Amino acid sequence: MPKSRTQTWYRQYVNRMRALANVKNAMAVLQWDQETYLPPKGAQARGQQLTTLAELAHHMATSSALGRLLQSLLDSSDLPETARRNVELSWEDYQKMKKYPTSLVKALTEASNRCFTDWIQARKENRFSLYQPALERMITLKLQEADILGYEALPYDALLDQHEKKLTTSTVETIFQPLQKAIVDLLAQIQQKPQPEDDFLYQYAPKQHQWDLGIYLLQSIGFDFEAGRQDLSEHPFTTSFHPHDVRITTRIHEHHLPTMIWSCIHEGGHALYEQGLPVEEYGLPAGQANSLVIHESQSRLWENCIGRSLSFWQFHYLELQKRFPEIFSTIPLQQFYRAINKVQPSLIRTEADELTYHLHIIIRYEIEKKLINERLPVKSIPELWNALYADWLQVVVPDDLHGVLQDVHWSHGSIGYFPTYTLGSVLAAQWWDVLQQSIPDLHQQMAKGNTQPILDWLRKHIHAYGSLFHTQELCQRVTGKPLDIAPFLQYVKEKFSQIYGLTN
Amino acid sequence: MPKSRTQTWYRQYVNRMRALANVKNAMAVLQWDQETYLPPKGAQARGQQLTTLAELAHHMATSSALGRLLQSLLDSSDLPETARRNVELSWEDYQKMKKYPTSLVKALTEASNRCFTDWIQARKENRFSLYQPALERMITLKLQEADILGYEALPYDALLDQHEKKLTTSTVETIFQPLQKAIVDLLAQIQQKPQPEDDFLYQYAPKQHQWDLGIYLLQSIGFDFEAGRQDLSEHPFTTSFHPHDVRITTRIHEHHLPTMIWSCIHEGGHALYEQGLPVEEYGLPAGQANSLVIHESQSRLWENCIGRSLSFWQFHYLELQKRFPEIFSTIPLQQFYRAINKVQPSLIRTEADELTYHLHIIIRYEIEKKLINERLPVKSIPELWNALYADWLQVVVPDDLHGVLQDVHWSHGSIGYFPTYTLGSVLAAQWWDVLQQSIPDLHQQMAKGNTQPILDWLRKHIHAYGSLFHTQELCQRVTGKPLDIAPFLQYVKEKFSQIYGLTN
Repeated sequence: MPKSRTQTWYRQYVNRMRALANVKNAMAVLQWDQETYLPPKGAQARGQQLTTLAELAHHMATSSALGRLLQSLLDSSDLPETARRNVELSWEDYQKMKKYPTSLVKALTEASNRCFTDWIQARKENRFSLYQPALERMITLKLQEADILGYEALPYDALLDQHEKKLTTSTVETIFQPLQKAIVDLLAQIQQKPQPEDDFLYQYAPKQHQWDLGIYLLQSIGFDFEAGRQDLSEHPFTTSFHPHDVRITTRIHEHHLPTMIWSCIHEGGHALYEQGLPVEEYGLPAGQANSLVIHESQSRLWENCIGRSLSFWQFHYLELQKRFPEIFSTIPLQQFYRAINKVQPSLIRTEADELTYHLHIIIRYEIEKKLINERLPVKSIPELWNALYADWLQVVVPDDLHGVLQDVHWSHGSIGYFPTYTLGSVLAAQWWDVLQQSIPDLHQQMAKGNTQPILDWLRKHIHAYGSLFHTQELCQRVTGKPLDIAPFLQYVKEKFSQIYGLTN
Repeated sequence: MPKSRTQTWYRQYVNRMRALANVKNAMAVLQWDQETYLPPKGAQARGQQLTTLAELAHHMATSSALGRLLQSLLDSSDLPETARRNVELSWEDYQKMKKYPTSLVKALTEASNRCFTDWIQARKENRFSLYQPALERMITLKLQEADILGYEALPYDALLDQHEKKLTTSTVETIFQPLQKAIVDLLAQIQQKPQPEDDFLYQYAPKQHQWDLGIYLLQSIGFDFEAGRQDLSEHPFTTSFHPHDVRITTRIHEHHLPTMIWSCIHEGGHALYEQGLPVEEYGLPAGQANSLVIHESQSRLWENCIGRSLSFWQFHYLELQKRFPEIFSTIPLQQFYRAINKVQPSLIRTEADELTYHLHIIIRYEIEKKLINERLPVKSIPELWNALYADWLQVVVPDDLHGVLQDVHWSHGSIGYFPTYTLGSVLAAQWWDVLQQSIPDLHQQMAKGNTQPILDWLRKHIHAYGSLFHTQELCQRVTGKPLDIAPFLQYVKEKFSQIYGLTN
């Protein structure tokens, strides 16, 4: 049977998209190496190699030939549903990529290099003012970018959309406003109660034993070591070159075992998602990980809902005691469980507990929003930052290093990125809600060390779809509701009421 | 001062060549990862990623824009000498690349995949006949390739030229014929003498201690760990992404320490060369490692002339005894020196000693030459192979696995590659000869652990030139002679006469 014109075009489209994915994944390999094994003097050459590949990828992603092919396919009436959706989503990406003038791309790259260098220097000297001019330049460019990309209501919407398609300030507001209030309330109640004793978590735990524990935990949650690996890096991350080659990294503090445990489970959650994407759709939207919010909903689900639950540790705590008897042999499971869920306001986002973490995020969101929508001057950031930390977290920011200089994101031009962390947790709670209903013996299974039913459910309902559906669509399909704060609020209230003995 | 047209063209040429180098080096990163860290299921996707990059590189290397630029530059009269030579060499490469029809490139890739698969299977079943049809196809294609590339005297010349520019069968003959005779003679004398006792070299040596020794040895010969690293792989190799990022690998047998030691020094020799290339010429012929023969002359010089010399171990043997007292504390240096230079004919090329190694190579050369120049049928290879091993090495090849199926090279279509190994050793002996004359206290320095004068000499006389000169030109410039067998013959005769107490 001869192939139809549409089939031929679709095959050509698939080949082009796969070649593009191959170049992007080659970049990911170079970046992974950069974070794990690159010798120090090799950094500059690596940067240039990445620039060349980025230019090639940009060229391939915006070629007129691809544009014509996409248009022909959009005009075809005989595309099957998934294929049509792939083409539509690729067309969206194509149009977006075409909007960027070369001059802006170049200016953003330069601003980002400058910002990063100045950020490093400002951290060294612990002075925000050294970073301020570079950040001002970056914000100016991001405003231009928002104008070029376009938006309906507010310029910040255009930047949110870059990190999470279709996300708007208005949606974020409906989640963050009640969330901020609820957390501050819950925190006030918690702070009237005695704190769990957690000194034992800071005892010495040898590097190799920690590493082995990490591998054990990853295996237990279903990470496929035939299709991926773990290495060490300064900042833990997940990257994927293909569903059959997913790399995660962890870090080890010999006097703080929890750092490794929950970074491992967190990245493991990201990795399970990447390993679960449909291989046959490689290079196409249906084969790509969905948005940052969906990705983070996977990592947070595994890290927090599962990895900080009593059921999970009912099985694994014996193993932990066996591997680190000096630390845990005299600590009962309940005490361990309370300690790993201790809530305590602090200065540094990445060290925050499951609850106050979101106040760190909402503070950053408030500042970003004002920078973009209200043209808040960059020089006012530290004052606003410190005021919000004092107000919501009741901590005094002693200096810029422990305040406004702690995150790298803005240096990269990632404005509109932070909200996806919290939205990911919110969505994780929605999945968790449905999961507990769908698998009635879920906690009993977890207490036997079996999280496979959870992974199976995620594979079937989320991973299998790649990025065919926008977050809100996927959320609606799976939970029957849009993004919703209620399950998260219920989850944290129940959990911390039980741990701290609060009366509702 | 405004730039001349030539300067502008040269800048454009440099940019194109650097972008091409960046893509090729990205491929090298992906290949390095493939051999060191790639999870098993990731192999197929990696192959596809490499194919995409290879296509992009081929496209860049053969673009008409580059061709026009090169022609304009060749017609310019105001290019400085090195720049002119860069352009001339790039033009040679360009013309060669342009000769390949896409159909042949594709057929060679397919034949190579088929050959490799069948070679694996043939090894598994220990039967050459399973590999024969695929190899026949490969040889047919290599004959076509030779015709397309063109040659003056013999088709094998075209294939030699691919691995070593300007090398011809006739040149190889003038080296290999006397070499084969001399080695067979020397071997006969050696075999009448008692063999050094070397059982102690097969004692248990723990992996980590071996690894640490390897790092120590690499540091001592001048490998810059800020501009490179070592990892483990099944087959040791060197790869470079830039002179500031050179990667080597080693392998460790816990019951054979020498495997690690001399693979480490051998790859270290390759790596010192790559680290010594001029950074400012990155991506251009003047910044690229020269031919395989030059490369091998570096690794063999370090591995054998230096790494198996008495002077070298006069310093390092104490360290070895300290690190492995169970093995070496009762073994005097002289006994160690004799043991690591034991000559014994054997079946496997990669396990051969410094002397008989070259008989393995010349056997492969004889077969290749006959396959291409005389159309020897592929099915006759095992018979010829086994006869030459019996005749020259006096060993009986028990089966194909220990004979004709041991090397992967032909599967890759690498015909004309093997001779470069031996020519590298021959050239190493020429450098060694000049080195010993140029640095009168060379052996005294080595006995103090100082090989820096050797590295300085190599950097100045060889590394600094990249591939500006063909092997014969460089050899003539540095030694005042063309490729010459005499220094190698003198070196092995002196060394083994001393070790075995032969009377000349």
